[in-house]
Amino acid sequence: MTTHDVDRRTVLKGAGVAGAATVAGGVFGGSGSALAQSGGAEGQLPASKPNFVFIMTDDQGYGDLSSYGATLTRTPNIDGIARRGIAFREHYAGSPVCTPSRAALLTGAWAPRVDMPNVVGPGSSEGISEQETLLPEYLKQAGYATALFGKWHLGDQPRHHPMEHGFDRWYGIPYSNDYPTIPVYDDHEVVTEIVYPGALTPDPGPGDDQDWLTTALFEKAFEWIDDHADEPFFCYIPTSQPHEPLASEYDESPGGPHGSSIEEIDQFVGRLLEQLDELGIRHNTCIVLTSDNGPWWVGDTGGMYGRKSETYEGGIKVPFVMEWPAMMRRSGVDYERPTCHIDILPTFCAAVGVPLDPDRVIDGQNILPAIRTGRPMEHVDIAYYRGNTLNAIRHGDWKLHVRRESNLGRFTGRLDWDATEEMPQLFDLSRDPGEHYDLSDHYPELTARLQTRLSDFDASLKADHAAHYG
Amino acid sequence: MTTHDVDRRTVLKGAGVAGAATVAGGVFGGSGSALAQSGGAEGQLPASKPNFVFIMTDDQGYGDLSSYGATLTRTPNIDGIARRGIAFREHYAGSPVCTPSRAALLTGAWAPRVDMPNVVGPGSSEGISEQETLLPEYLKQAGYATALFGKWHLGDQPRHHPMEHGFDRWYGIPYSNDYPTIPVYDDHEVVTEIVYPGALTPDPGPGDDQDWLTTALFEKAFEWIDDHADEPFFCYIPTSQPHEPLASEYDESPGGPHGSSIEEIDQFVGRLLEQLDELGIRHNTCIVLTSDNGPWWVGDTGGMYGRKSETYEGGIKVPFVMEWPAMMRRSGVDYERPTCHIDILPTFCAAVGVPLDPDRVIDGQNILPAIRTGRPMEHVDIAYYRGNTLNAIRHGDWKLHVRRESNLGRFTGRLDWDATEEMPQLFDLSRDPGEHYDLSDHYPELTARLQTRLSDFDASLKADHAAHYG
Repeated sequence: MTTHDVDRRTVLKGAGVAGAATVAGGVFGGSGSALAQSGGAEGQLPASKPNFVFIMTDDQGYGDLSSYGATLTRTPNIDGIARRGIAFREHYAGSPVCTPSRAALLTGAWAPRVDMPNVVGPGSSEGISEQETLLPEYLKQAGYATALFGKWHLGDQPRHHPMEHGFDRWYGIPYSNDYPTIPVYDDHEVVTEIVYPGALTPDPGPGDDQDWLTTALFEKAFEWIDDHADEPFFCYIPTSQPHEPLASEYDESPGGPHGSSIEEIDQFVGRLLEQLDELGIRHNTCIVLTSDNGPWWVGDTGGMYGRKSETYEGGIKVPFVMEWPAMMRRSGVDYERPTCHIDILPTFCAAVGVPLDPDRVIDGQNILPAIRTGRPMEHVDIAYYRGNTLNAIRHGDWKLHVRRESNLGRFTGRLDWDATEEMPQLFDLSRDPGEHYDLSDHYPELTARLQTRLSDFDASLKADHAAHYG
Repeated sequence: MTTHDVDRRTVLKGAGVAGAATVAGGVFGGSGSALAQSGGAEGQLPASKPNFVFIMTDDQGYGDLSSYGATLTRTPNIDGIARRGIAFREHYAGSPVCTPSRAALLTGAWAPRVDMPNVVGPGSSEGISEQETLLPEYLKQAGYATALFGKWHLGDQPRHHPMEHGFDRWYGIPYSNDYPTIPVYDDHEVVTEIVYPGALTPDPGPGDDQDWLTTALFEKAFEWIDDHADEPFFCYIPTSQPHEPLASEYDESPGGPHGSSIEEIDQFVGRLLEQLDELGIRHNTCIVLTSDNGPWWVGDTGGMYGRKSETYEGGIKVPFVMEWPAMMRRSGVDYERPTCHIDILPTFCAAVGVPLDPDRVIDGQNILPAIRTGRPMEHVDIAYYRGNTLNAIRHGDWKLHVRRESNLGRFTGRLDWDATEEMPQLFDLSRDPGEHYDLSDHYPELTARLQTRLSDFDASLKADHAAHYG
């Protein structure tokens, strides 16, 4: 047997977990950035501040877009974003479940670092801390208008609501759409309540009372964009669909309710693009569509192992398409290296020239060079937390698992689907993206080094968390 | 919305579940067979009786062969069988778990019909009934020598052992390889005991004491084939690998222990083919390699949903390759219609001219016309039993689920992974082989008809079981 040098893929200085940049420091980050190393900023960068429209669907799987292999769900408008821009093929959500994924997106940090490791339900006292600086708060430092149309899920109490954390405007729901009653907020006021009588029962049934919600979220977003077209804006649209119960006004997808839920979103993406054209602001608007985690009951992981809640790839790898004409020098790029929700905050802040809080660790990295050139960048390790437990890391193309989701009675028979049985597992994602062939016995030294790397990173994060949260 | 005619794909009379043939009645079955309808037996059929070598691996996934998409496991010898013969791309094991899958293979009936619905462990009083006529017993009526080299798993008590059920010879183990002690039988005698100290513990570890077993099974099989080359024979080789604990003498697969376990089997397949050539009997020997169910902890479902024990496709659809020069009129066929382990008994009996017991329902069908011509045949419904519960049926390309595996705490959060939540589910396997898009809401009439079809079939099978087993 041979052993691999665990560091052989770590080309750039500081690309390891411990070396994550903490300051964006300008449009293309510090001097160590890949773009700087690869010849500087080629071409003219846009002079004006870009707009950001960030659409994040809920429980949409990696394979649930035509451009990511779907056969029954048709998404021509979203696919067009990829065709004109970039399809990120190795993009990771912040977590395999909802709340921590959103926390990672809006803080640039793995969720346990910012004290948001678990899903927050109605009535919980938990929520995003005021000591964290969220992406809209950073952007407001650069004069941005900010709004959220959709599902928040970072705290149900008024002090945790989005308008206390950098958003000028909110229309949407505070938590998931599968509770008995779901309040719909318009800024600070509850304007209606969706009822879902079957919630929490074994056979909850369809969400007939919320068929209109996706339409309402987008219509409110379109109104707001119309009103803010003359200033730089950040419009965050985290839809409540296709999270169960599936609900949409459109119902003609060959993919059934799941497909219809997604196709309805796709149709609104088409309208969004038309609106940006009509307003004359599309050229310097960064448009993203992604998902918060892998699929739940139905939906397509793209053939990967695991689903929502699991730290196998199917639970956390999601589609991510971006179009941004003023920034991108190429179109139709398939970007094959890892990127992650944690990169969004440092990237957007770098694009608008807002420095990051030097007292806070930002786990993500500025990926503007990749967006600009389409050329691959090295990436910090992906940390697969579930709750406060670090189940796995991806370092280069190697993924080491030390635990799996523990409450999956995954198989029958004498042996339970234990959290640590058959662990550690080592997979070569470049050749085995489905995580089928455990190579830990073949590479014991590499396995041991990655175990140490995982433990060290987790200890460092926990110490940082303790310093901030006691 | 439109509704589909549930019968539109049922082209041939009697192809529905209720119409399964109960008598093979000659080389190509009754007058209703597809071959008879498609122009008769083209070309000269072999005059002598064929030999059968049926290799069935344990927990090997659909995607765990190079010819079925594996990238890290290399199986050139097994792939060669497909290249010269037929790769059945829609083949179903008899069940998503071990014992009932083997019962279905050797009786031609769904396992609950023959009173073998569940996995049988050491010391159990359960086992295959003497009232059932097993495949080797049928073949002995035509003068066949019969032998089993490998894992039996149809009963641990002496009265249930293979030599009481039609096998002249047995070398192997009575149940799975992951118990604390595993006796190795040579005919009626225990010649050694494998110990597996970690069995039944949360961290059982590797199976170092059984690395030699695959080699021994094949070496014994080669000896026996040498001794019986002058008479027609049925050599059944159900390997104990790649069931956990993974164990092999060969350990150089890029696919790690799982890959090495499979590649070792592939190497013995290569030796088998050489032996048959040297003996001059390869031309009229039917060689099969398949698996007993989908993969367990590791292994590749080929991107399908579900794993071992689940009635989703990944739990039960398996690779199935066959080479049989004297019978096949084409080579390199990809056979895309359903076939199943239950077809083996009626097919082999038809090939040797042994009539089936008219008092017993054989669920499977004679697929010799497909083997002979490579042309598609309609198939009876696939019945996805788990224990005595019929979770799903496939009728044509439609698959209806009414239950899933109930003790899978599949996801976390408020909702448990319930056996019937979100059921029924309807999938179009022709367009959605991964079972991602539930179409039951789109086709309510079809769904209702399939529910009735499922219930009727289950009631019929249960009545038949009661008539035989009280």
